[in-house]
Amino acid sequence: MARYRLTIEFDGTPFVGWQRQANGMSVQGCLEQAALRYCGETVTFHAAGRTDAGVHGLGMVVHVDLARGDRADKVRDALNALLRPDPVVVLDAQVVDDDFHARFSCIERSYVYRILNRRAPAALQAGKVWWYAKPLNAEAMDEAARCLVGKHDFSSFRASECQAQSPVKTLDELRIRRQGEMLEVYVRARSFLHHQVRNMVGTLVLVGEGKWDRDRLAAALAACNRSAAGQTAPAQGLFFLNARYPEDQQA
Amino acid sequence: MARYRLTIEFDGTPFVGWQRQANGMSVQGCLEQAALRYCGETVTFHAAGRTDAGVHGLGMVVHVDLARGDRADKVRDALNALLRPDPVVVLDAQVVDDDFHARFSCIERSYVYRILNRRAPAALQAGKVWWYAKPLNAEAMDEAARCLVGKHDFSSFRASECQAQSPVKTLDELRIRRQGEMLEVYVRARSFLHHQVRNMVGTLVLVGEGKWDRDRLAAALAACNRSAAGQTAPAQGLFFLNARYPEDQQA
Repeated sequence: MARYRLTIEFDGTPFVGWQRQANGMSVQGCLEQAALRYCGETVTFHAAGRTDAGVHGLGMVVHVDLARGDRADKVRDALNALLRPDPVVVLDAQVVDDDFHARFSCIERSYVYRILNRRAPAALQAGKVWWYAKPLNAEAMDEAARCLVGKHDFSSFRASECQAQSPVKTLDELRIRRQGEMLEVYVRARSFLHHQVRNMVGTLVLVGEGKWDRDRLAAALAACNRSAAGQTAPAQGLFFLNARYPEDQQA
Repeated sequence: MARYRLTIEFDGTPFVGWQRQANGMSVQGCLEQAALRYCGETVTFHAAGRTDAGVHGLGMVVHVDLARGDRADKVRDALNALLRPDPVVVLDAQVVDDDFHARFSCIERSYVYRILNRRAPAALQAGKVWWYAKPLNAEAMDEAARCLVGKHDFSSFRASECQAQSPVKTLDELRIRRQGEMLEVYVRARSFLHHQVRNMVGTLVLVGEGKWDRDRLAAALAACNRSAAGQTAPAQGLFFLNARYPEDQQA
């Protein structure tokens, strides 16, 4: 038996989300089907983050135990061959210690949220961005966003169905940068509340449009009430970027 | 009546190509349907390049005449509203002189071809890249590619069904650059033979793999024979980038 740490890329469009569900195809289910065909074993994959339907993965980290204990690169190539044509691929595989857990050992998660900010709808990037036609001021968003960084009660940005024990989280980084027509919102923290990133993005666009200023954003945070903040940005613009573990080199 | 010059972005995946055909949905057909719903007029769109099935457009230039002569930004927004959900959008619209012709007035066309060069197949970029698992040396490709630049008989890179009168073309630029896992091949010329870009890319990967050197590539060009060059690279990696006209500012 060996435990494998895998880095996964996936297009979230056709999936009901990470987690296996009765009502449709999941990323977890695809991986487990591929492992079953590879090893004849029914196994469970665990992920650093349980993404919602439509959310994408650029560098999701997962782990799995396989009885046959093949070399890591063989596991990567075999799973990739068996995952096709579903849009899930294994970018990297490593054998890790038995106490590694993709979810519970994770000390940092990062996401990027992409907003296509132009008059014309998305064509080539459809399903991979939030199309936002009204002009957004990225500098104003980046400046205002600083009030969200640090340790706060994020109840205003928490989905009602969130199962976290506490609404208090420490946001380590939140940056907004424009690259031509694309706005990229980068966030990094040990962990996030359910819908926290999408709720922050859906509120920050109010600042970007000039409807809200930094004080209004700070007041929304201080209210500790979901109705004080903006809408939930759509899932399709969100990408799970990276997960970090104690054994990783500091970036 | 007014003539409009439109800049179009499209995802080529669901289309039989630019040109209207009986056997499936075309980019031209989508635009003409949208114009019919907008104006009640049956019109013809003309494009700078007639792309193949699966080829994408980042900045394709087209023109059309519309009897109602609305303002250009109104035409852009109306067509965008009526094109949805097909993955074709109008990025820009301008009223132009009656003698502007998207195809015949065009003095320069550029394409980019994207190769995802990594062990794992494409997931997020599926349908928008050529996945090439064997390592490619971009510098060697870029160096060898210089022998294709200039005025040559490109018969070795010409599709048998090509309708151009002469196989002689002047290639103004051909560059290959690596950005992480992605290789981008950039080409620029007044015009190209049918499949010329895809046939050049399909041959350049032989250099990138180390199977061919620059002399072999030069010999393939000099042979003036399609069988002397490499395979046709798949359509899905090719993007029509830009078209230039005499009235445009020099870049």
